[in-house]
Amino acid sequence: MPQLRIAAAQVNSRVGDLAGNADLIVAWTRKAAEQGAHLVVFPEMCLTGYPVEDLALRESFAAASKRALEDLAVRLADAGCGSVAAYVGYLDADSVGPRNAAAVLYEGAVVATQFKHHLPNYGVFDERRYYKPGTELDIVQLHGLEVGMVICEDIWQDGGPVAALGQAGVDLVVSPNASPYERNKDDQRLPLVARRAAEAGAPLVYVNLIGGQDELVFDGDSMVVSVDGTLLTRAPQFVEHLTVLDMDLPGTAPRTEGQFGEFLVRRISLSSAPVPSYQPLPPPPVAEPLPEEAEVWFALVTGLRDYVHKNGFRSVTFGMSGGIDSAVVAALAADALGGSAIYGVSMPSTYSSSHSKDDAADLARRIGAHYSVQPIADMVDVFVRQLGLTGLAEENVQARCRGVTLMGLSNQHGHLVLATGNKTELAVGYSTIYGDAVGGFAPIKDVPKTLVWQLARWRNAEAEKRGEIPPIPENSITKPPSAELRPGQLDTDSLPDYELLDDILDDYVEGDRGYSDLLAQGFSAEVIDKVLRMVDLAEYKRRQYPPGTKITLKAFGRDRRLPITSAWREG
Amino acid sequence: MPQLRIAAAQVNSRVGDLAGNADLIVAWTRKAAEQGAHLVVFPEMCLTGYPVEDLALRESFAAASKRALEDLAVRLADAGCGSVAAYVGYLDADSVGPRNAAAVLYEGAVVATQFKHHLPNYGVFDERRYYKPGTELDIVQLHGLEVGMVICEDIWQDGGPVAALGQAGVDLVVSPNASPYERNKDDQRLPLVARRAAEAGAPLVYVNLIGGQDELVFDGDSMVVSVDGTLLTRAPQFVEHLTVLDMDLPGTAPRTEGQFGEFLVRRISLSSAPVPSYQPLPPPPVAEPLPEEAEVWFALVTGLRDYVHKNGFRSVTFGMSGGIDSAVVAALAADALGGSAIYGVSMPSTYSSSHSKDDAADLARRIGAHYSVQPIADMVDVFVRQLGLTGLAEENVQARCRGVTLMGLSNQHGHLVLATGNKTELAVGYSTIYGDAVGGFAPIKDVPKTLVWQLARWRNAEAEKRGEIPPIPENSITKPPSAELRPGQLDTDSLPDYELLDDILDDYVEGDRGYSDLLAQGFSAEVIDKVLRMVDLAEYKRRQYPPGTKITLKAFGRDRRLPITSAWREG
Repeated sequence: MPQLRIAAAQVNSRVGDLAGNADLIVAWTRKAAEQGAHLVVFPEMCLTGYPVEDLALRESFAAASKRALEDLAVRLADAGCGSVAAYVGYLDADSVGPRNAAAVLYEGAVVATQFKHHLPNYGVFDERRYYKPGTELDIVQLHGLEVGMVICEDIWQDGGPVAALGQAGVDLVVSPNASPYERNKDDQRLPLVARRAAEAGAPLVYVNLIGGQDELVFDGDSMVVSVDGTLLTRAPQFVEHLTVLDMDLPGTAPRTEGQFGEFLVRRISLSSAPVPSYQPLPPPPVAEPLPEEAEVWFALVTGLRDYVHKNGFRSVTFGMSGGIDSAVVAALAADALGGSAIYGVSMPSTYSSSHSKDDAADLARRIGAHYSVQPIADMVDVFVRQLGLTGLAEENVQARCRGVTLMGLSNQHGHLVLATGNKTELAVGYSTIYGDAVGGFAPIKDVPKTLVWQLARWRNAEAEKRGEIPPIPENSITKPPSAELRPGQLDTDSLPDYELLDDILDDYVEGDRGYSDLLAQGFSAEVIDKVLRMVDLAEYKRRQYPPGTKITLKAFGRDRRLPITSAWREG
Repeated sequence: MPQLRIAAAQVNSRVGDLAGNADLIVAWTRKAAEQGAHLVVFPEMCLTGYPVEDLALRESFAAASKRALEDLAVRLADAGCGSVAAYVGYLDADSVGPRNAAAVLYEGAVVATQFKHHLPNYGVFDERRYYKPGTELDIVQLHGLEVGMVICEDIWQDGGPVAALGQAGVDLVVSPNASPYERNKDDQRLPLVARRAAEAGAPLVYVNLIGGQDELVFDGDSMVVSVDGTLLTRAPQFVEHLTVLDMDLPGTAPRTEGQFGEFLVRRISLSSAPVPSYQPLPPPPVAEPLPEEAEVWFALVTGLRDYVHKNGFRSVTFGMSGGIDSAVVAALAADALGGSAIYGVSMPSTYSSSHSKDDAADLARRIGAHYSVQPIADMVDVFVRQLGLTGLAEENVQARCRGVTLMGLSNQHGHLVLATGNKTELAVGYSTIYGDAVGGFAPIKDVPKTLVWQLARWRNAEAEKRGEIPPIPENSITKPPSAELRPGQLDTDSLPDYELLDDILDDYVEGDRGYSDLLAQGFSAEVIDKVLRMVDLAEYKRRQYPPGTKITLKAFGRDRRLPITSAWREG
């Protein structure tokens, strides 16, 4: 059977950086060429980064993307990689409108282009705002083999372009993707890719982006699946990776052209002679998907690292309170940026316990962070006395003096401020706007409180396994959580127990269940009333919160779009 | 020719308030009935409010909307209005998905329902995320006349359901709308409605919502246009209004049913006998569209008033600096809420000029606002000394101490904080995050600086015409703008002249022009570079800004969706 050596380049591109992404594509195509690959597949819109949002509507950006693609074809040939067919996603635009496109670059030219057909417009996706769908499929003949292409969402839909490719006849299908990470999503991808391979009657090369972009993080999980659904190789998650795989392909696909359903199939021949028979490489490994906590941890580390670096920051600062949230943020930041990039600040008030200060200092020592203490008593005192603040107003002013302190240090020293709130807090509005909610990025914004504890235990256990110092002080994990804004305050004064709270939130927010469903699940009417009311009233606060890496289906900010002004109450 | 008395109920409904909106519909149907109307048309999704955003995806909300519609039909009959055919927009959901729907309520029952076909998914609209399109058209026979219905976007598209109604045969078309205000949009509506009336071969009753909902404000501008394009009546903008109009309709429409293009037309007969001939009412007036500044002013007043009241606040507070922005916000708030609902706070720093304090006090007197002075020197001093802040960090800490002061007073006294920044500032990032950007609502967020001055002059002139005290001190209008964060500081130290700046922003933001277009317009490369860089870098700040009434095509926050992390630079 004819042979083909294929390469899947799972890379981290950067939105808007046409020059940098072109360099990246040249570098990885060169690696593929060095390993003798005949084709290399890059992720969806690799040349522009993904998602470009309203940049898609800027004519000047689309024109620059098209120019960059043509220049790239020439550069690849100049770099001696012209004979490797490179599949590169980019932004196109024609008289119909902007297009989510991918092209084949070969021997210094753009030899084929194809536009995405299925445009997702749910959850994190708004592609129907931006792109017009394509209905033409360019099947490229390479070394006598017929190679079809489909972009991302086109493999998530039954029927559609994959079925048309199958009817027209292909020996191989390649698919550039930008599929954001979500907990347990990899469980869905493999069966999906296998189903499409069967539909196409050909193996499928699935290549996904890695890296963070604003609230999204891409996990890679690139793979090749045979026509019978066998997983031939899978790349490790959250790292750049080149997979090179030798395939024996039947090469018996018919070469029909013309209309297949709504799709017009065209054939483009690059080379009709099969490659001379050669000794195949040993098969590449099949990476195991990461275990649950590890996967979430690396998603958060990747999202944080790329947000900081891609926005040009080198260091971060945040309040180290001694509590679990700031401890987990610190451990994530240490893994993402290194301890020396962290400037932790303890900002005790008159209500702060001594164990808080001790735990914060202990944390900083464990991760090797810079650490300073800035008591807020003097600042708070001026506001409280001058404005006559009491009760909640007095509690909030403490959090806000901390916010002003961090922002002042950020302005003075150039650190990015991290907000340390978790998803549970955000859901119920248990945070102070312009106080603990200040910052440019919120690493655990989409992590429910119970998962924060779980991650802390997992990360410490990993350190112990490796004979390293566990980053998180045991006391931060075990002590009862408190905002310490008044004497003896505990979270449980205002909130239900976190296990119960997270269960209700999972049903109400992630599951979109109504009041009567929640009652039927056995929650008490009183606690449902209380929690739902808090969630509904906190919409404004959530909108003002910094972005943070999305790991659940319904991350606040990215997916959920609710009116602020709304009289709707469940029940 | 058969007669029909039609009523257009231009009302202000509230998102999520099914009970309150049902009361509103009963009250206005009763008014229509008292005036002898045979049918009354309410705006799009009047029963749920518009837009409901992700509430559309909650099964419990859709179920409650359907129940409320059925209850409403019964209540209307109980109130003695059963014989008035009421066209009521609501949220439906069936096995296909959620539907943007409108129903005809008659004699205690829901007698017809129709789903919107064209689902807008651009600008402020995300309807393809939420709704499935409908392709069935229910034409209702009322007093022997054939009445068709189309919902909002269905009249903005050539062809589509209006053409199908025209082919099938109708005597009248009614159209419930939720069409947000935008400067000069009324110039587009009349020709559009006229074109659709011609396409339908029947007069068209266009009914639009009024009122504010988060960042959107609806202006009404409801109208009736005859088949030959004559404007028969138009309601005044930004007020609730019932238009009652007697029409002589030919009643000669064929009664064909079945498939017309992609639409299935059905006929439902409520009453086949024409109404006995009666003496028509005198024709209602045709309201003139408001002049340019008045229209913007009322849009801003309406947006602010409804945001405050629909969120349950009674009073507002904000910094009165003596500058033009806070003066215009104060005048808007006085018109929206009354002077006694305003708690202005002067927060002088050591750099504040004496004219600033005088102008602020003068403003408060003119509009009858509460007024207090809270110097920030002591607060600023603690932060600056303890943290060692200099330069920009010191400037920002002043703005942030003002932010903490306003939020403290808000927490203590329950006022909503208004942010007083304008669109030009927001565009270039000339504001302090967590400082002057704090607040629940930003009334002039979408008003460019040059328009702020223009509105100030217009409002003062209006007051003079009416023999009232102009609300805005002349000195606030004429003095050169300054943030007063360091000695002798002027906005022009950091920014181009505002006339020039607004011109560039209009091209770059509203017009989406690229670098070379801007050069071709005659702007200098240096100023383009500077402005575009400021705009691109301020995306994060803009996202953290409070919501504010949208009056332009590309309001920040509502329409423009750009990545924060982006390396793209024009030029």
